[in-house]
Amino acid sequence: MKALFRLLVITAGICGMAMTSIQAQKPVYIPASDLTLVGKIISTENLYHRVDTADFPALPPAVKRLLTNSAGLAVTFKTNSTAISAKWCTSSRKASSNMTGIASEGLDLYIKKNGKWQFAGVGRPREDCTEASLVKNMDNSEKECLLYLPLYDETSNLEIGIDPGASIKKLPDPFRKRILIYGSSILQGASASRPGMAYPARLSRATGLNFLNLGLSGSAKMEKAAADLVASIPADAYILDCVPNSSPQQIKERTGYLVSTIREKHPKAPIIVIQSIIREHSYWDQKVGKRVADQNAAIQDQFRLLQQKGIKDLYFISAKNLLGQDHEGTVDGTHPNDLGFDRMLHQLKPEITAILKKYDISADD
Amino acid sequence: MKALFRLLVITAGICGMAMTSIQAQKPVYIPASDLTLVGKIISTENLYHRVDTADFPALPPAVKRLLTNSAGLAVTFKTNSTAISAKWCTSSRKASSNMTGIASEGLDLYIKKNGKWQFAGVGRPREDCTEASLVKNMDNSEKECLLYLPLYDETSNLEIGIDPGASIKKLPDPFRKRILIYGSSILQGASASRPGMAYPARLSRATGLNFLNLGLSGSAKMEKAAADLVASIPADAYILDCVPNSSPQQIKERTGYLVSTIREKHPKAPIIVIQSIIREHSYWDQKVGKRVADQNAAIQDQFRLLQQKGIKDLYFISAKNLLGQDHEGTVDGTHPNDLGFDRMLHQLKPEITAILKKYDISADD
Repeated sequence: MKALFRLLVITAGICGMAMTSIQAQKPVYIPASDLTLVGKIISTENLYHRVDTADFPALPPAVKRLLTNSAGLAVTFKTNSTAISAKWCTSSRKASSNMTGIASEGLDLYIKKNGKWQFAGVGRPREDCTEASLVKNMDNSEKECLLYLPLYDETSNLEIGIDPGASIKKLPDPFRKRILIYGSSILQGASASRPGMAYPARLSRATGLNFLNLGLSGSAKMEKAAADLVASIPADAYILDCVPNSSPQQIKERTGYLVSTIREKHPKAPIIVIQSIIREHSYWDQKVGKRVADQNAAIQDQFRLLQQKGIKDLYFISAKNLLGQDHEGTVDGTHPNDLGFDRMLHQLKPEITAILKKYDISADD
Repeated sequence: MKALFRLLVITAGICGMAMTSIQAQKPVYIPASDLTLVGKIISTENLYHRVDTADFPALPPAVKRLLTNSAGLAVTFKTNSTAISAKWCTSSRKASSNMTGIASEGLDLYIKKNGKWQFAGVGRPREDCTEASLVKNMDNSEKECLLYLPLYDETSNLEIGIDPGASIKKLPDPFRKRILIYGSSILQGASASRPGMAYPARLSRATGLNFLNLGLSGSAKMEKAAADLVASIPADAYILDCVPNSSPQQIKERTGYLVSTIREKHPKAPIIVIQSIIREHSYWDQKVGKRVADQNAAIQDQFRLLQQKGIKDLYFISAKNLLGQDHEGTVDGTHPNDLGFDRMLHQLKPEITAILKKYDISADD
């Protein structure tokens, strides 16, 4: 891309297109905290944390750390700038080998076109603090923007850069209602190629509903403190995608408390339980195969038991075919790549929206 | 996954499945050089280089460096081991932010099931030299294996680890004929999630034909020395996917020499020219938009000119819809993610195989 950029600079004079002169000027930065934050689970002292863990001292340390990650958060604004850049800081952690740097600690920009959110550019992380161009050489019409934050790192600062003289304004949250999803690394976004490809982000863009990402990589184990946290969060619906991280025994012991605690606090909200994806490892590794089968049997048992106990508005989504049939839908046998997530989306979206519609949870009202 | 492993160890005693005791033993390693190397473009002194650049002194330095990358190479073998591990070394380069470590410098294992290659596990790079388990706890039947090497790094050593007492044997190359593809980073594998998801690797598994990866990230510019290299490589067919790296002017000046030099050396081999994917940036960045349109117009002009000059057995594949319609098929606006590659595969495979069949180039003979 460096070579391409050099070439573009050289050919700019002869390409015959109307370019505004401000593009080459230094961007003017404004703090993202002045704009609208989307995907926020609960109000926090640090804007880009998901939960203030001081309020939940009994949470396991790994959960506390993961709640500082900015997974699922985005900033929305309107600008007529022809170029958009960003300055942002994350921690010194680096992307794990099954994720891209862009997904783990980078930015992902969408702009609305013909009423739909369309990918426009990424912020590639270079250092713990990076300044990067996200998109440039656009026309100067007003554009609605949605900028996703890093999935697997803490974001400690974010500024949006625009052309000098261009306008930038707050936009209302584009998504309606609140659907909280509690789950594993797969929910948090491993291994989408960029932040906007995590499955709750894709569900939000596809439905207009606000899917809130409470993905806790490796740590969605339904501990009592985690269940109390989930139940304390106000939402119109609750989706539990935490089977991959919980042992069959934990599923047996903990699902009841999680579901009934949510039900107690939110008597009418639908609760949707999703089975674990069938890990691709499990077709070869007999131990993993048995574990996944046992996890999925255990959650189905618990679901039936809770139904029998009279818990209403409880739904179950099977893992069958979530990743497709060709075994190419993961990066590492466990975490979906964008192909696997696309298949998940096509199965989950109609099932989830059909349930939510029964409760008048839609983007229309 | 660490937590999962601990749990599996704890529960192994109660899971009631027949596990062989050798799994827990230290693997026995054999050099991959004793096995069959697949995807080799030409014989080289360093087994895991693609071309000995000393034989082509006029190549640009960037091309020389990229030819040391093991993109497209794989090792095939047969084993009855219940676990497969690997030790391998790459350079000190790290994955760029638009790639996973696994794709850039890791390993990717497929095992044949019911006549088809099926994903089985990855080698996650940790240091420049890594020892890692790829898959374990399998039954002890004979398995045909195909292990892909790093896409974006030099591989200086590779050993395959099996259970003590298990057998490991060379297998013949599973792919027939030779179809050389010369192209950009997209061909080399950016940004597939793992080595086996690069599009030539997927084409080989899907067709049984041997697609050879001469992807040169950012450097497929059809220089005279590169054209001479391409034409010097014996193959049954030649695919040129180098438009993304070449300026419209370079396409105008260089395509003729590249195509006619291949034709001269290989009078009957089909030559297939592919337009550039429409970069997702180009829907917003007017300069990139103009460049891609100019590149694709230039290659179409050159194709027509060469046809008019009487060059036979020359084919053209349009870029239309290569990445689909939802704009979600790239990691960064330029490089396909696995979703984009899947869409490319579904368009390219029937077009390419239909052309090859006219020349009796198929996996059947």
